[in-house]
Amino acid sequence: MRALVKHHAGPELQLDTARPVPVPGPRDVLIRVKKVGICGTDRHIWEWDAWAAGRIPVGIVTGHEFVGVIEKIGSAVTKYQPGQRVSAEGHISPMVGYNARTGNAHIARDMVILGVDRDGVFADYVCVPEDNVWPVHPGIPDKIAAVLDPLGNAVHTVMSAGVSAKTVLVTGVGIIGLMAVTVAKAAGASRIYAVDIDPKRLALAKKLGAVEAFDAREGGGPGVPPGSLPWVNQIRKDTRGDGPDVLLEMSGAPSAIDAGFTALRFGGTAAILGIPSRPITFDLNNHVVFKGATVLGINGRKMFETWYQMEALLLSGRLELDEIITHEIPLEDFARGFKLMQTGEGIKVVMNVSG
Amino acid sequence: MRALVKHHAGPELQLDTARPVPVPGPRDVLIRVKKVGICGTDRHIWEWDAWAAGRIPVGIVTGHEFVGVIEKIGSAVTKYQPGQRVSAEGHISPMVGYNARTGNAHIARDMVILGVDRDGVFADYVCVPEDNVWPVHPGIPDKIAAVLDPLGNAVHTVMSAGVSAKTVLVTGVGIIGLMAVTVAKAAGASRIYAVDIDPKRLALAKKLGAVEAFDAREGGGPGVPPGSLPWVNQIRKDTRGDGPDVLLEMSGAPSAIDAGFTALRFGGTAAILGIPSRPITFDLNNHVVFKGATVLGINGRKMFETWYQMEALLLSGRLELDEIITHEIPLEDFARGFKLMQTGEGIKVVMNVSG
Amino acid sequence: MRALVKHHAGPELQLDTARPVPVPGPRDVLIRVKKVGICGTDRHIWEWDAWAAGRIPVGIVTGHEFVGVIEKIGSAVTKYQPGQRVSAEGHISPMVGYNARTGNAHIARDMVILGVDRDGVFADYVCVPEDNVWPVHPGIPDKIAAVLDPLGNAVHTVMSAGVSAKTVLVTGVGIIGLMAVTVAKAAGASRIYAVDIDPKRLALAKKLGAVEAFDAREGGGPGVPPGSLPWVNQIRKDTRGDGPDVLLEMSGAPSAIDAGFTALRFGGTAAILGIPSRPITFDLNNHVVFKGATVLGINGRKMFETWYQMEALLLSGRLELDEIITHEIPLEDFARGFKLMQTGEGIKVVMNVSG
Amino acid sequence: MRALVKHHAGPELQLDTARPVPVPGPRDVLIRVKKVGICGTDRHIWEWDAWAAGRIPVGIVTGHEFVGVIEKIGSAVTKYQPGQRVSAEGHISPMVGYNARTGNAHIARDMVILGVDRDGVFADYVCVPEDNVWPVHPGIPDKIAAVLDPLGNAVHTVMSAGVSAKTVLVTGVGIIGLMAVTVAKAAGASRIYAVDIDPKRLALAKKLGAVEAFDAREGGGPGVPPGSLPWVNQIRKDTRGDGPDVLLEMSGAPSAIDAGFTALRFGGTAAILGIPSRPITFDLNNHVVFKGATVLGINGRKMFETWYQMEALLLSGRLELDEIITHEIPLEDFARGFKLMQTGEGIKVVMNVSG
Repeated sequence: MRALVKHHAGPELQLDTARPVPVPGPRDVLIRVKKVGICGTDRHIWEWDAWAAGRIPVGIVTGHEFVGVIEKIGSAVTKYQPGQRVSAEGHISPMVGYNARTGNAHIARDMVILGVDRDGVFADYVCVPEDNVWPVHPGIPDKIAAVLDPLGNAVHTVMSAGVSAKTVLVTGVGIIGLMAVTVAKAAGASRIYAVDIDPKRLALAKKLGAVEAFDAREGGGPGVPPGSLPWVNQIRKDTRGDGPDVLLEMSGAPSAIDAGFTALRFGGTAAILGIPSRPITFDLNNHVVFKGATVLGINGRKMFETWYQMEALLLSGRLELDEIITHEIPLEDFARGFKLMQTGEGIKVVMNVSG
Repeated sequence: MRALVKHHAGPELQLDTARPVPVPGPRDVLIRVKKVGICGTDRHIWEWDAWAAGRIPVGIVTGHEFVGVIEKIGSAVTKYQPGQRVSAEGHISPMVGYNARTGNAHIARDMVILGVDRDGVFADYVCVPEDNVWPVHPGIPDKIAAVLDPLGNAVHTVMSAGVSAKTVLVTGVGIIGLMAVTVAKAAGASRIYAVDIDPKRLALAKKLGAVEAFDAREGGGPGVPPGSLPWVNQIRKDTRGDGPDVLLEMSGAPSAIDAGFTALRFGGTAAILGIPSRPITFDLNNHVVFKGATVLGINGRKMFETWYQMEALLLSGRLELDEIITHEIPLEDFARGFKLMQTGEGIKVVMNVSG
Repeated sequence: MRALVKHHAGPELQLDTARPVPVPGPRDVLIRVKKVGICGTDRHIWEWDAWAAGRIPVGIVTGHEFVGVIEKIGSAVTKYQPGQRVSAEGHISPMVGYNARTGNAHIARDMVILGVDRDGVFADYVCVPEDNVWPVHPGIPDKIAAVLDPLGNAVHTVMSAGVSAKTVLVTGVGIIGLMAVTVAKAAGASRIYAVDIDPKRLALAKKLGAVEAFDAREGGGPGVPPGSLPWVNQIRKDTRGDGPDVLLEMSGAPSAIDAGFTALRFGGTAAILGIPSRPITFDLNNHVVFKGATVLGINGRKMFETWYQMEALLLSGRLELDEIITHEIPLEDFARGFKLMQTGEGIKVVMNVSG
Repeated sequence: MRALVKHHAGPELQLDTARPVPVPGPRDVLIRVKKVGICGTDRHIWEWDAWAAGRIPVGIVTGHEFVGVIEKIGSAVTKYQPGQRVSAEGHISPMVGYNARTGNAHIARDMVILGVDRDGVFADYVCVPEDNVWPVHPGIPDKIAAVLDPLGNAVHTVMSAGVSAKTVLVTGVGIIGLMAVTVAKAAGASRIYAVDIDPKRLALAKKLGAVEAFDAREGGGPGVPPGSLPWVNQIRKDTRGDGPDVLLEMSGAPSAIDAGFTALRFGGTAAILGIPSRPITFDLNNHVVFKGATVLGINGRKMFETWYQMEALLLSGRLELDEIITHEIPLEDFARGFKLMQTGEGIKVVMNVSG
């Protein structure tokens, strides 16, 4: 079969056209891949940065966002049949221990990740454990089903924070931040504010439902404390002087984290998905303790509460994802796909693997 | 001043044109009333049913839904000034005891209700304690501000249940049930189902956001268990066979309660605002215990969390209340107002008291 | 092997000494049974009441409370090894659908119950799916490990309600009600009140931690409303006039349900495990709606959050179960075991199956 | 009257014996002070450190922990009478705005603190607003009632985190940390671990209920990451390899915060009361995001949920405070009281003001 492989300990990926089709174990299903999404993680692997060099086994098939059709099931599989259209949760755990057994498998021990620690989905076929399979509702088109993984990150963040009838600040509107805007709106946020440094994405955030989208840098600079930033003050003014009820941190940028927490109202909730590249300087007293804030660390997607929420939101017809998925290209054009992401020309790029 | 008074122990109300203007105590504010809403409770008082005969003191000024302007403040009032446009929470408690002091004043002990236990708002002026005042945001028009009380019932119910990305069944779409439909939609419900027996209100429920609105009686009859009702089965089919995540009970009708709980999915949440006229026969085992259901009793409005949520929802521009407030009439036409409610021609009737 | 079998469509059970040892499927484990507990459900099966006659397949091996040692594992089992000491959750689901996949497998669809719908544990060997196995901590003795199933009912009820620093009323102190008393105390309840009609069990409830244990009938009788019962008033007086924060309903008796809800404070939480024998007359208005109560239906044990909580509570050394497990007898004496339960001489009876 | 006054912009306090008795406003009560506690904050004011120099108005009466008897009530006071034994919440807000009106007055805007921003309780009399008064239950002795303020910090922290049937790590067992140990035990924690650097307090922590009390520095040093600390590993080993369910951070020490979060299990909850002296370096990724942790900032005491919880815990007889309140001295010996705190000889020092 064809597979996009990390062929050496260096940049880029190679299309291997003679990779053997994997053989499902007794509790696995073999899935014929239809469409895949390119994730920011895939870009790290492509660029072979320090994280990738330290984590990714050379020779691995990459990719973890996908939709496909079950081709074959293992001997002990009971829940699925060949022919079912499915996606799958890419976080694979042996399902032992406290979190695995209490509905929190997304933070279970000994997790391995599809396309990171074991062969992934940028290929004609992929094997995943039966327990990780998600049957895709017929009302959800392939193009959307291919990106349930990052959409699930956004949904997990928004739903954990709880946005119903609340004002929400999203710091960082990359792919998942943009998804968070449309998800927050569909989930009942009363007003959404977006902050970023990319004018194109800010404009898109407004189209997707943000009432205001601010350039994070405007009015800032050396010596300007976050509490004096014009956008922080404008949001505050717009929210009875209190600040937003909810902060969805999607940037990982220390300055955005600092400003976002400064803006957050006393007693508010911050859900953090963004990953700073290193430990940050953090004003624990003012941002959390005195403020009586609740801070939620967000990892992956709840298995499978997040997936059910996603399905409900998608079927409600309220999510606007069309402008977030900017490109659909054939698998063979993968090099172009990665370039689209690197240049910022594309937001979410989907690759077609099979019909 | 003018005041609509329960003048005798019998039906109807009388317009007294020489009622003395009340004098605010040290912690009260005197409010000049602008607009008022007629509530179902007011209709009970008008009709002098058994409940009213047992509760309402003859001579009282009726009414509790309103908006007005502060005319005068008591000597110890610190938070408000004359000239402020306000509504007020009509549940008045001495603010002592556990619930009053822990953010649950809506279920505090020794509660008296405006227009039920003490003089109400169907008058040129009304006195309320400072702690009950709600300053109305300039973005909310008088006509809406006059009905924050019932809207708050709907918001309290919807927000207590939690509807974000959930399927919701509303049993009973009278005034508050209809409000619950638009509130649930604005608060992020993924799909809303409405059930009632009045075709006009069912049609309005669909306009306000219900995906389906069912005649409760269709397919029913003697010997038909609730689990066999066509609408119960249709909702179930539409929700993966599970039933709705959330039941908002707004009817008080035993058959609707029975059918609503039957429809509710295992592990679902039922928020009950409807008030049956007497103790009901209730299948505790199948409706609650085996189902692992959560049942929430809803009373009044949280003071003042519900009011803040209402403000957020109203300012989001997502609530559709125009078709629920069917009539605006002068105070002097009160008899017509009550008739509009009794015939079902009107849904919510607002009376103009002063300019 | 030996097995206690429902040998005919009538009362009692028979000890079959030549039952074939079951053969585990690929995802099952075969467990050699060490000790078992007799449950109230087993007594219904023994007595062949209407429920049993309608549900239990003749020929089935009964029993579901147990501890044993894994004898053999199926070909696709990955999590356990022969020799491990284990118990198991007796609610067995195909693990498909919303609740099964969101941490609520205890209320999943298509549930079958060990010893009720399929062969149970009153036997030398039993097969259960790998996913249902619970490895027993070495610090927990066999005698206790044999009754984790009913203890789990008590823990699920107490932990769902939340009792930390709260006053708690337990209505009905049969086996699980008594367990609930010691669990509530260990879980941090500030004061526990027990109500029942059996003086011996009331006395034991006090030993286990209830500050007061009342005879439910005292001061009652025809025409005495629950709000006038002396014990309801004494609890109320003892709780600032409010009533208990939490009601744990363990009796299934309509009068206890009525009195318990009457006693419950406004805004309190009722967790219901007791099962009335038929639909009850229920004052929804006063017990739930006006009171702003939260009512939780409790079914089985959360899989496996309840089991972890149980382990934590048992290892804390705070649970007092010795006087609840009144008898240990050999499997062969099963007829005596059922008699001990029927006469009320025994509370929990444990049968020894193998060494 | 007598009053302990910050008499100049420098260290120590002076006993003014001719301070005028304050006059209550219309909504205030005047309280004759019986006993007071010396807080760490009072010590900062005594020592006149940078924080005190920047915040405390010279001339102020200090102190905020106390019990007394109402001497006189303002003209508009309705809830209390002279003669009632009371304490009071020292966080005084104008009670306007979102948090003040939604049960979160402890983090309301425009808060002033008794004995910090306005005249406090180290005096024969003090005035507080009626809304801040807490009537003390007759079952609680004066000595305990004098320290409800810090006990409330501990209760707020423990109850916010939720410790019922959970393993708990307390980092920092100063006064409030020690209180948190006894509170956590009474509130149902299954196992409590304490960490500090003071052997005397560690020994006391064990007496109060910690199963282990570790010297934070043991096995540590330059180059030893927190994950390699012996005490972190011992707790982990003791908790199925997972780490404690709950972290109560009471130290404000960056190294303790780092080690505490490292120990915390995936999906655990950290409640932070400790206040680092400046922004810290914080590993947001590993401590919060990847871990799926919940972090709660804790400020003051919930008004008045925490106070009710405190009363329930105290009346349960389970709190052990006697060894935490090490000294009772007359007001005149205040200099000795502060010295007892500075040397560490005393833990909580109570001063007797009047009989």
